[in-house]
Amino acid sequence: MENKQSGPRRTQSTRSTRPYRRTSHAGKPATDRAPDRSQKTVEKTTAHKADVNAFKILPLGGQEEGGRNMTVFEYKNDIAILDMGLMFPEENMPGIDYIIPDTRYLKGKEKNIRGVILSHGHLDHIGAVTHLLPKLGWPAVYASKLTLAMVRKRLEEAKLETNLKAFEIKSAKEKLRLGSMTINFFDVTHSIMDSFGVVIQTPNGSAIHMGDWRYDLDPAEGPKTDFSELAKWNNPKRPSMLMMESLGSTKPGHQKSTKEVMINLDKLVKDANGRIIIATFGSMVERVGQLISIAEKYGKKVALDGYSMKMNIEIAKKIGYIKFNKNTVIDISQISDYADNKVVVICTGAQGEDRAVLMRIATGQHRHVKVMPKDTIVFSSSVIPGNERTIQTLKDKLYRLGANVLHQEVMDVHASGHALQEDIKLLIKQVKPTYLMPVYANHYLLKEAEKVVLSTGFPKDKIFVIDNGNIIEWGSDGPKISSEKVPIEYVYVDGLGVGDISHVVLRDRQMMAGDGMIVVIATIDTKKGQLINNPDLISRGFIYMKENKKLIEQTRRKVKKIFSGKLDSNLDENYYKDKIRNEIGQFLYNKTQRRPMVLPVIISI
Amino acid sequence: MENKQSGPRRTQSTRSTRPYRRTSHAGKPATDRAPDRSQKTVEKTTAHKADVNAFKILPLGGQEEGGRNMTVFEYKNDIAILDMGLMFPEENMPGIDYIIPDTRYLKGKEKNIRGVILSHGHLDHIGAVTHLLPKLGWPAVYASKLTLAMVRKRLEEAKLETNLKAFEIKSAKEKLRLGSMTINFFDVTHSIMDSFGVVIQTPNGSAIHMGDWRYDLDPAEGPKTDFSELAKWNNPKRPSMLMMESLGSTKPGHQKSTKEVMINLDKLVKDANGRIIIATFGSMVERVGQLISIAEKYGKKVALDGYSMKMNIEIAKKIGYIKFNKNTVIDISQISDYADNKVVVICTGAQGEDRAVLMRIATGQHRHVKVMPKDTIVFSSSVIPGNERTIQTLKDKLYRLGANVLHQEVMDVHASGHALQEDIKLLIKQVKPTYLMPVYANHYLLKEAEKVVLSTGFPKDKIFVIDNGNIIEWGSDGPKISSEKVPIEYVYVDGLGVGDISHVVLRDRQMMAGDGMIVVIATIDTKKGQLINNPDLISRGFIYMKENKKLIEQTRRKVKKIFSGKLDSNLDENYYKDKIRNEIGQFLYNKTQRRPMVLPVIISI
Repeated sequence: MENKQSGPRRTQSTRSTRPYRRTSHAGKPATDRAPDRSQKTVEKTTAHKADVNAFKILPLGGQEEGGRNMTVFEYKNDIAILDMGLMFPEENMPGIDYIIPDTRYLKGKEKNIRGVILSHGHLDHIGAVTHLLPKLGWPAVYASKLTLAMVRKRLEEAKLETNLKAFEIKSAKEKLRLGSMTINFFDVTHSIMDSFGVVIQTPNGSAIHMGDWRYDLDPAEGPKTDFSELAKWNNPKRPSMLMMESLGSTKPGHQKSTKEVMINLDKLVKDANGRIIIATFGSMVERVGQLISIAEKYGKKVALDGYSMKMNIEIAKKIGYIKFNKNTVIDISQISDYADNKVVVICTGAQGEDRAVLMRIATGQHRHVKVMPKDTIVFSSSVIPGNERTIQTLKDKLYRLGANVLHQEVMDVHASGHALQEDIKLLIKQVKPTYLMPVYANHYLLKEAEKVVLSTGFPKDKIFVIDNGNIIEWGSDGPKISSEKVPIEYVYVDGLGVGDISHVVLRDRQMMAGDGMIVVIATIDTKKGQLINNPDLISRGFIYMKENKKLIEQTRRKVKKIFSGKLDSNLDENYYKDKIRNEIGQFLYNKTQRRPMVLPVIISI
Repeated sequence: MENKQSGPRRTQSTRSTRPYRRTSHAGKPATDRAPDRSQKTVEKTTAHKADVNAFKILPLGGQEEGGRNMTVFEYKNDIAILDMGLMFPEENMPGIDYIIPDTRYLKGKEKNIRGVILSHGHLDHIGAVTHLLPKLGWPAVYASKLTLAMVRKRLEEAKLETNLKAFEIKSAKEKLRLGSMTINFFDVTHSIMDSFGVVIQTPNGSAIHMGDWRYDLDPAEGPKTDFSELAKWNNPKRPSMLMMESLGSTKPGHQKSTKEVMINLDKLVKDANGRIIIATFGSMVERVGQLISIAEKYGKKVALDGYSMKMNIEIAKKIGYIKFNKNTVIDISQISDYADNKVVVICTGAQGEDRAVLMRIATGQHRHVKVMPKDTIVFSSSVIPGNERTIQTLKDKLYRLGANVLHQEVMDVHASGHALQEDIKLLIKQVKPTYLMPVYANHYLLKEAEKVVLSTGFPKDKIFVIDNGNIIEWGSDGPKISSEKVPIEYVYVDGLGVGDISHVVLRDRQMMAGDGMIVVIATIDTKKGQLINNPDLISRGFIYMKENKKLIEQTRRKVKKIFSGKLDSNLDENYYKDKIRNEIGQFLYNKTQRRPMVLPVIISI
């Protein structure tokens, strides 16, 4: 092991060189080791003779979506994990904070985990560490300096940082042994510094995983990106499989150079007569660093706003990745102390998030930034699918304030950190792998990546498009998709709850969002066998009760009718509850064509 | 009046020639005539001397969004209305079916309405007729044949069709007098047949409204689109104002020709070895008609699926706008009677709507269409902003079924019905208006349209970018924006309710969607001054109660504590309700970091 531990706990530094040890699981067929809830899946598959010496590649997340990236590499009794990311919720998951990978497969195998490698510091690659590191018994974490600093910060906020066993990968030249697997690293260009890809070597073959990647064929400084070196991992005895992040696979051409974007941004900052407000992702650490340098060059001050951005820049500054004069960055509260043409605000909220900085600026609710017609506002970011309409609303508000608003639609002010079709072709040409597996994107993008790769003449039977939970078993005769499949579900994080939100809870949220709900409370005097007083009705999100007194009164009468006559002293509550649900539900639908959730309550006195 | 009434009621055919009549309102200053709820706005403005002879242009909707298009043209005591569209809800309007224009301005002025002109048959232009025609006292409707047929169908479904006073505009050469205004028509190219624009003439000037428009510079048949004729409406005595739909104003270039798209689709249909399934909007009547012709040419059968599409095609066929052999179109249940390479399915659901045809096909829930690997599935449609993520999910499902899936990202299989930047420049050059008003789009798109027009050398002070409710007052000295503003709110349609959903109801829906709700029921024996039994707790969308018994028990204890001790016989319910809301809300937040809506109920026995 050539890397040094950067974290506070050096006692664990031998962990990565721990020799291969047999555990009680060793030698059992793979299907026996599947977690309980996978039994059904396993039973369905054909008889399967597991190769105990196979190199297994198992994506727990990121193989059917952009997010919750996490891949298990398993060889004999050693497990290496790449990335532990989160995913932001879909529209049909109201109230959910985020989703983390389903790690049931690792239950009982915690002691086999030789290390967790994190490719870079974005949340879809590190965001689940606070949940999964404790759950997996705090395995050693290997990552670059910036990535580790970001992980540490995240754990600090969860008051968990003292448990972290961190090992810094100081350069791509380092080599790591995780049990019987050897890991090499290589630098990749992405939108955050210190990103790397990994090569995981076993006697059967090597997996080359790009992490998130792009080419910069016309970089602002330094040499062009080149992955030709990676070709060396492919040879007849140990062929390589390229695991290629494929987010840009439907987009033609090469990703545009950061140089072009930075030239545009440089000109904007230089020429701005008024203030310039640049909104981007809090995770675009590299761009924010460059923007600070540009501002400094033109003698302008920079005010950062947005929690994640400030935190990330503080981290990057602390470890020396971003440098600027101490007077360049000012507090957002100080911007009015300077001439407008000396002020650059860099902030978050370009996705139109409700309470994020740019939305507060747009709605006039920002304490320090009131938009003036001479301001220039730049959306230096892409649109995350699903946010389009929210961003339109945000743009409407900003245009209305009279500022000059610039965004991707009207100027090149953003280059994404992901490769496009021509980049993919170039990569295949440079790396020359035997096998290919598109990863880290929606299924349809993986299939489109396959098409792009096929267009280079790559053989179709050497391409693996698999799902979360599918296992590549790579024996001495090459890799194949196992008939076994590990069950993968969404693990929702909502407030303090992890995995406690079920489909039932989400369905209820959706129902109440659609048509609201009404609680019907009937109080029964069991001795007299009759209703006491009027039934209580409480409704939210259904109708505005104050303006619908007649409907309320009719509903109340309906409820009374359900309980008319002498009631049995031993009341069958379920019978009456069903009756309320059905009859009141139908009645309200007939009257309104809405289907509120009807919640009957019977109180027996 | 040269147009003939096409509808069943000829008794009203004199309506459009009704002479100018003074009403009790005539001569009063405009501010006096504002509806009650606008008073606040009116008071705020500076003293305003209304020109009673001004030509007023007042957008009630469509000026800040794509949708709910409706514009009032008012001259003296005559009102002409253009379009009555609906708008689909935003993300923060859960459960809402759609939104219609706010017509409070027209209250009390119904008798002045000389006619409603509908530019074409899309829902954002005609979708509110069932609500607004009755509300406005069934004014006469002027539209082309197809548009009228679609309006009639919509009214039929609402059982309102007998009230319709319909006048068909048979050709763009017709001329109409609506009170003191004269209306001319002109053909526009859009994605539905029978679309037209209008010229509304008054002595002060003429408004040229494009409706929805595009150029087709390389049409599949017929001459190129040309709007040079419209230049005649501009002259020093009667200048023209061009009201230009601006949805494509951020997109460079010309809208692509339908020819190119149809060549691609033709080739796909011709070459398909298996079935071909083409999904598009139900409103793309023209394209569906062309696709049927193509299928017929290659001896293939067409099955249509999707309610709106089938209805629209039936209407278009009935009036002779779409022609095909009676054997060409088969029922969707018959597709298995034909060889796969003889079947073309055209359906709705390309936006990923939950229960629409394509989603049912993708999820295997369609009764007659099961996707096979040899099928070709084409998304012949654009992505409506906000639907991106849903469409990704839909694509994932379809790719997973192994079919060849084609969409805009990978092939030109759709051309939108809207003009792009170069089209806008060409339009300005051809129409040569004195004034310009971008319309029918989000505010930021109107501002971008302004930029495009400015780039042609058009003077900035002759461009009007206004909001819903703003009034253009066009006196003899030219148009200006009135200081008066008509209040415009969202009028929500939800089930049978129109306008009864308030912000309160929507906020409640959002709250419950986010963190669910909990009902706390305390039953009090007022004589004894104490709680009866355990408080009842009912929760939905908050936690899965079965798995959180401990939290429920703790909550119950908290409630009991609130009611501990001897209670006053005259219980202050509000005091206790507040206490429950605050203390239980805080307790649950501490335990879960979720904020369910807490609904306290106190039942006194």
